[in-house]
Amino acid sequence: MTNPKQLTTGTAVRSACRNGSWTAPTCGLADGFAQANFVVLPKALAFDFLLFCQRNPKPCPLLDVTEPGDPRPHHVAPDADLRTDLPRYRVWRNGELVDEPKDIARYWQDDFVSFVIGCSFTFESAMLRAGLPVRHIELGVNVPMFRTNIACRAAGVFHGPLVVSMRPLTPSDAVRAVQITSRYPSVHGAPVHIGDPSAIGIADISHPDFGDAVPIHAGEVPVFWACGVTPQAAIMAAKPALVITHSPGCMFVTDIRDEELAVG
Amino acid sequence: MTNPKQLTTGTAVRSACRNGSWTAPTCGLADGFAQANFVVLPKALAFDFLLFCQRNPKPCPLLDVTEPGDPRPHHVAPDADLRTDLPRYRVWRNGELVDEPKDIARYWQDDFVSFVIGCSFTFESAMLRAGLPVRHIELGVNVPMFRTNIACRAAGVFHGPLVVSMRPLTPSDAVRAVQITSRYPSVHGAPVHIGDPSAIGIADISHPDFGDAVPIHAGEVPVFWACGVTPQAAIMAAKPALVITHSPGCMFVTDIRDEELAVG
Repeated sequence: MTNPKQLTTGTAVRSACRNGSWTAPTCGLADGFAQANFVVLPKALAFDFLLFCQRNPKPCPLLDVTEPGDPRPHHVAPDADLRTDLPRYRVWRNGELVDEPKDIARYWQDDFVSFVIGCSFTFESAMLRAGLPVRHIELGVNVPMFRTNIACRAAGVFHGPLVVSMRPLTPSDAVRAVQITSRYPSVHGAPVHIGDPSAIGIADISHPDFGDAVPIHAGEVPVFWACGVTPQAAIMAAKPALVITHSPGCMFVTDIRDEELAVG
Repeated sequence: MTNPKQLTTGTAVRSACRNGSWTAPTCGLADGFAQANFVVLPKALAFDFLLFCQRNPKPCPLLDVTEPGDPRPHHVAPDADLRTDLPRYRVWRNGELVDEPKDIARYWQDDFVSFVIGCSFTFESAMLRAGLPVRHIELGVNVPMFRTNIACRAAGVFHGPLVVSMRPLTPSDAVRAVQITSRYPSVHGAPVHIGDPSAIGIADISHPDFGDAVPIHAGEVPVFWACGVTPQAAIMAAKPALVITHSPGCMFVTDIRDEELAVG
C-alpha cells in the first residue's frame, strides 16, 4: 500500500486507486479535498434517480452527474476515470451484493450514468476547524446512522425513509454547528433535527441501523443530519437489475476544495 | 378579466387562469408567493433537460419536476393543474412558435414531464423590501436581458450561452444586493457579474437581446444575474419536435412563499 501521507490531493488518491496501490477507506486522505458517494446506474433508471436526488437534495446533494457511458466526472475531477479511481466498489444485482472489486471495467456499460454525491466529511472538517467535537472521529469509529420515519419524496421506482447521521453536541455547540454546516448545502447542509430521537421515529439511540454507537454525554443533545446512505437505501429497496456503488468508506476523492462548496 | 386586486394567492391566480378570467402577465399578482418559469417536454428529452438544469443551477433553479404524465406539481402547488393554470402558454414545434393558447389540454401527452423553474420576481421583492431600487420596475418595463460569452455546461442535446438579466445599482447598493440575493439560491441567487459588460461578452449595454433597455445613471454599475431565459434559449437551439413553455411574463404562481425559498 502507498504511504497515506503521500496521498495529499484528489489526483494522488485516484492515481493510487487506479494502479492498485490503495484499496482501503479514504477517511483522512487528501485533507481539504471534497470526498463523495458514488452510484452508477443504467440510463433507463437514471432519470428516476436524478429526479429522486432533485426532490431530496439534503440527503442526495449532487456534485456531478455524467453523460451516459462517459466515465469522466468533468465538473469535479476532469481527469478521473470512475471505473478505476475508487479504492473499492460494490456490485449489486437485483438488490444482492455480488462482488466487491477494485475496479469496475468489466461491468461497465455504454449506457451507465454516474452520480457523484456530496458526503459529510466536508462539513465535519469545518466543524473540527471551528473547535467543535465530532464524537465518532474522536473515538475512531464510524458515524452512527438511523432510519427515520420521515419519508423521502418518491421518484419513479425510488422511495424510502430519510436516513440520518448523528453527532452529540452541547446545545451551544449545536447552534454553532447549525451555522457552520448551513454553509455547505451541497454536502448535506444544516441538521434536519435536534434533540428527541423518537420525534423522528428512532426508537433506541444506542442501536444505530448502520455504523457504530457513540456515547451521548450529560448535557449533550443528539444532532441529526441527512445522510448519503439515504439514496443507497432507496436503490437497494428498488432492487434494480444492476447498480454499482462505492464500498463503505471507500469514497471518490474529487479535485474540488471543501471551501469551494461553501456558500455565504 | 378578474380584478387583479382579488388575486392575492397562488390558488386565486391559478383558479382565475383555469376558468379563463385571467390571461395576462402575472407581475404584481399574489404578492409574497413565488412565481416560476414553466417548461414541459416529452420524457425522451426529460433526462437531458433535468441534467442541464442540474449542471447549471444558477440559470435553471428547479422548484419542482413532475412524474411523467402527471400535471400536478406536488411540491410547489399540490392542487394545481399545469395544463390550465398559467395565463398563457407557448407551443413550439421544431423550434418554431406554432400556438399561444390559454390552456394546453389538447397538446398534453402521457409522457410529458414538467419543470417549474424559479424566477427573479422573488429576489426583486426582497431587494425592494430592503429599499434598493429596481430600475425596470420603476420604469414599468421588462428587465433587460443579454446573451453572454459564458457557455453553460452542456447536457445531451441541450447547450448554449448563459443569458443574464441586468439591474443598475450604486456600488454600495450592489454589495447589499449580493447579500440579499445570496439568500435565494433557488431563484437565481447571487449575481454572476458586476461591472464591465464586455468582460462577459456584452457589446452594447443599451441594446439588450431580450426585454427593454434601462438607463444606467452616473455612479451606477450594471449588476448581472443568471436568467431563466437561459434554459428556454437552450431548448430553442435544440429544436425539439414539441415543447411547451409559459408565455413571456405569464408565469406559474405557486403556493410557496418567497420567504420559504430563503436560506441562512
